[in-house]
Amino acid sequence: MAAGFVDQVTLPLAAVDDAWRSLAADTAAGHAALQYGTTAGYRPLREALLEEQRTADGNPAAERSLTPEQVIVTSGSNQLLHLLADTLFDPGDIVLCAAPTYFVYLGVMKNLQVRAISVACDDYGLMPDALEDCLGRIAGRGELDRVKAIYVVSYFDNPRSVTLSADRRAELVAIAKRWSQRRRIYVLEDAAYRKLRYDGDDVPSLRAFDEEGDTVIVTQTFSKSFSPGVRVGWGIVPEELMGPLCDQKSNIDFGAPNLNQHLMYRVIESGVCERQVVLLREAYRRKRDAMLAACEEHLTDIEGVHWLKPAGGLYVWLTVASDIDAGFQGTLFDTALAAGVIYVPGEYSYASEGEPIARNTMRLSYGVQSPERIREGIRLLAGAIRQVRMTGTDSPYQRL
Amino acid sequence: MAAGFVDQVTLPLAAVDDAWRSLAADTAAGHAALQYGTTAGYRPLREALLEEQRTADGNPAAERSLTPEQVIVTSGSNQLLHLLADTLFDPGDIVLCAAPTYFVYLGVMKNLQVRAISVACDDYGLMPDALEDCLGRIAGRGELDRVKAIYVVSYFDNPRSVTLSADRRAELVAIAKRWSQRRRIYVLEDAAYRKLRYDGDDVPSLRAFDEEGDTVIVTQTFSKSFSPGVRVGWGIVPEELMGPLCDQKSNIDFGAPNLNQHLMYRVIESGVCERQVVLLREAYRRKRDAMLAACEEHLTDIEGVHWLKPAGGLYVWLTVASDIDAGFQGTLFDTALAAGVIYVPGEYSYASEGEPIARNTMRLSYGVQSPERIREGIRLLAGAIRQVRMTGTDSPYQRL
Repeated sequence: MAAGFVDQVTLPLAAVDDAWRSLAADTAAGHAALQYGTTAGYRPLREALLEEQRTADGNPAAERSLTPEQVIVTSGSNQLLHLLADTLFDPGDIVLCAAPTYFVYLGVMKNLQVRAISVACDDYGLMPDALEDCLGRIAGRGELDRVKAIYVVSYFDNPRSVTLSADRRAELVAIAKRWSQRRRIYVLEDAAYRKLRYDGDDVPSLRAFDEEGDTVIVTQTFSKSFSPGVRVGWGIVPEELMGPLCDQKSNIDFGAPNLNQHLMYRVIESGVCERQVVLLREAYRRKRDAMLAACEEHLTDIEGVHWLKPAGGLYVWLTVASDIDAGFQGTLFDTALAAGVIYVPGEYSYASEGEPIARNTMRLSYGVQSPERIREGIRLLAGAIRQVRMTGTDSPYQRL
Repeated sequence: MAAGFVDQVTLPLAAVDDAWRSLAADTAAGHAALQYGTTAGYRPLREALLEEQRTADGNPAAERSLTPEQVIVTSGSNQLLHLLADTLFDPGDIVLCAAPTYFVYLGVMKNLQVRAISVACDDYGLMPDALEDCLGRIAGRGELDRVKAIYVVSYFDNPRSVTLSADRRAELVAIAKRWSQRRRIYVLEDAAYRKLRYDGDDVPSLRAFDEEGDTVIVTQTFSKSFSPGVRVGWGIVPEELMGPLCDQKSNIDFGAPNLNQHLMYRVIESGVCERQVVLLREAYRRKRDAMLAACEEHLTDIEGVHWLKPAGGLYVWLTVASDIDAGFQGTLFDTALAAGVIYVPGEYSYASEGEPIARNTMRLSYGVQSPERIREGIRLLAGAIRQVRMTGTDSPYQRL
């Protein structure tokens, strides 16, 4: 239950087949798809993506000034996150993020010698008061000019599957603008899991609260809601960033694979994309329910164990008693591994500065496994936790 | 005649269609193609690419130690060139290259604050003596430890379409090894145009002269020989580099689009890839011949004009009289533009250190246009050169 992969059997083979056949039947379009594209991406796709965002957010005031020139297409949203970091940040710059947050992005920052500082969050996401306090402390140290962005996985975040509440979205954008004194502090909104909602209503993106359009960068992807193998992601960015981003992207790969962009355009236009999302929601809801039911059944009576009940996404965030180290170096990981179950230790999702690292946490994924295997996995995990609680000994097993 | 695009009508729509249909008909393979892949790339594709390189080079001694673990797949070879630069070079490091060389790569280096120093070349490519002299001068300044790589476009280079001769390949590898004293100097071989040969026999890659397998990095791509829109490139790298490259690639995009890799594997296995190369050679040979014939017809009697006659690739390198500035700021560019023809000024292809920049040069592409349009383009260009020679005045036209 470690891999953040998506469910294999729901992958949209028929939908891609339809899209390819319609593309191949149109010789001019087919040839265009096999030729170089433009650095920012295939224009009709960028228009369709913007339109979708407008429809989903429904805030005419904030969306009025948006144009397809502010949409950039990349090889998955991760490439865009990297591109943004590479373009915007210098070594020593500061990015604020939730504790915990997406561990791959922490790696990106570390690589670029960017300081990630974590801010406390609760069941409604990153806490505005804690963010203000953190900015105040940084300003007090004279380092406010080094703060370049606030990174937030805004829907069913990785790893906790918590969604930032609507009122906090407005507050976060306002805070970023207020503290953008000599230098702009961007809000970098990673909306990768937006479409994977199983309960409740969608909320507008942070972008919808940025009426000037100068603060929020949204990144999005088809990897979770359609297919990771197609590897198409995109972003909507303030106008001033398009030039620098395209310059750098042009240096790297001249733009995302044109074939994949043409395919996804046809997938969207045919309406198949939305139907696929409906199908995915059904499949993942069942898996989530299976995991939560198994947690109720096997984990309820173990002291110190609790977990978040996600309304979407691909993960359940589990906490064990505070004296258990659930990390790679701890006994629980090896014990679980020996029992046949694997998870992502929560420790990887914490920045090294800011909030303390909760080493008694783990991310459980329900994306890949069947409901049966999920139930079995939780049963095995429960056994491992009990064993560690009883013995408390160091693991006899070799490190991976 | 500026764009380095490939010929639109020869793009292999039917071949990709066959590959997709065979993939879609195999549900398990189709699903796998739509799922995340591995960071280094799809294993069967990597095996096939290595096998192809082995067959083409035919040096068992140098190839014996090679394994598919040394093959990495990227979104075009440009992404790999960037990834290598990002992983291997620090600001202030030195890369030696030909004068002139691939201008996009010069941009990559500039961005990373890497010093590109150019070395003289002739009709057989980069000159080993000049390379030795250059290394000697650098060592004399105490900067040898900063030299990280020798970059060479080894077949029909961009922009001159010159192929490095076989004896020089051996010499270049030997020089790199000899000067790798305290730090390794890699030979970075960009073999993008290898398959676009219209006359003569193929020569082994520089890799075939690196028996220890520790010095030469080869980058390759399907963009020129198959389709740029599919955006699959790859490299064969010394073993020690795979770890750092995959770590960084994992930070960026988790690996090249899996769908595209599965498609290209099927394209190779079916033999269509080789048939496409045969077809492309025919089409480009005709275009090259059209451009060379037009040069003979229209440019022969203009004083100071000469050009290289390429045996492959996509470009003709043209030199005008030394008192004519063929650059963006010069009169000729505007005059040609007004006449309806555009080229890439040679000045962009020179590093700022090393050999002097030949501003009386230009790169003419014959990839995109039809033979008729190529003939017309050369006729118009000849008119523009004559006009500039006669008037010598500054251009009345606005800058682009």
